Amino acid sequence: MLNDETINRIRKFTEDRDWDQFHTPTNLAKSISIEAAELLECFQWSDENFDINAVSEELADVMVYCIDMLDKLGLDADEIINTKMGQNEKKYPVEKAKGRMTKYDKL
Amino acid sequence: MLNDETINRIRKFTEDRDWDQFHTPTNLAKSISIEAAELLECFQWSDENFDINAVSEELADVMVYCIDMLDKLGLDADEIINTKMGQNEKKYPVEKAKGRMTKYDKL
Amino acid sequence: MLNDETINRIRKFTEDRDWDQFHTPTNLAKSISIEAAELLECFQWSDENFDINAVSEELADVMVYCIDMLDKLGLDADEIINTKMGQNEKKYPVEKAKGRMTKYDKL
Amino acid sequence: MLNDETINRIRKFTEDRDWDQFHTPTNLAKSISIEAAELLECFQWSDENFDINAVSEELADVMVYCIDMLDKLGLDADEIINTKMGQNEKKYPVEKAKGRMTKYDKL
Repeated sequence: MLNDETINRIRKFTEDRDWDQFHTPTNLAKSISIEAAELLECFQWSDENFDINAVSEELADVMVYCIDMLDKLGLDADEIINTKMGQNEKKYPVEKAKGRMTKYDKL
Repeated sequence: MLNDETINRIRKFTEDRDWDQFHTPTNLAKSISIEAAELLECFQWSDENFDINAVSEELADVMVYCIDMLDKLGLDADEIINTKMGQNEKKYPVEKAKGRMTKYDKL
Repeated sequence: MLNDETINRIRKFTEDRDWDQFHTPTNLAKSISIEAAELLECFQWSDENFDINAVSEELADVMVYCIDMLDKLGLDADEIINTKMGQNEKKYPVEKAKGRMTKYDKL
Repeated sequence: MLNDETINRIRKFTEDRDWDQFHTPTNLAKSISIEAAELLECFQWSDENFDINAVSEELADVMVYCIDMLDKLGLDADEIINTKMGQNEKKYPVEKAKGRMTKYDKL
């Protein structure tokens, strides 16, 4: 998932437009929230009747800004996700969390 | 980026806890927005003084829910991102967009 | 709704703590999004089983930051809401919009 | 702020269109997040160069959905805000919080 060609296309897009100057960590955090809300808008009034093309486009936008932020901060996706999954596995032990959506501090 | 081991760890986490039942597309869209806002909170009052560990954790959370949503909807990350980048490249032609953060409909 | 005593309590809270310096329009916009996501979190995994106290607290937080932003920008709530409602009434004519949640540009 | 005429206009707008059926608490929470992100978009790439008319419209949208949610849940704005301000005043004592934007659990 996310092969080099895809990542390079995202990087080239920003470089070609000289947009790195706008990609501060704060602005990227804002952008991720903005695109996440556009994704949410696909489900604003109905859980079932969503447009899969619109969902795909908005989800792609969220992911592209995530990749921009990884680049900006010199972070590695696999590393930060594995670190976080390690925390999640401890916070939500299988025997307590199975089949229940209770926040970890109330488990 | 995002190698098979990472993806499988995310999938196993959900399966072990029998949480797929809660992972409706709407709930995942809500979750992406919620985590995106937690990422934004790292920059709430300052652009410069952010905690890189907190940022890494929240960015990881956003990406994990994105991967959950891809799985849920049977979407391929490279495919949807390349489709979207193709649209972006047309909406923001280099000669018009270079060095300017103007929304495409006002370029 | 929102009587003078309430508004003055919100203003005094900020003044007493010398927090006006942090209340830039951008920071308040971020804060509204962050609190809105905390409100959304009350409904993350279930539409029905929500904690009304938590909802009340988060909704209050959103509204407090909205009032801070009105103050910061010298805007009047009744005025901007009435202007927007006038636009909404035109964008969603009763005869077309009745009983349908279709975005105005597709009505 | 928020006089009866404004509130009644918002209520009539929903009633005339028979939209109360769509105004579930979850959908309104999603809508508040979506509009909050549109407000944030006014500040996506710049803190200073914002369009005050766009900001006014998006802030109005957030507030209208907040009022819809108060109505839906039978909540009183002054009551929930005063309850929350009482909590905030305790969480952020003036002598500790003055001039500092540190989260209460780290004060």
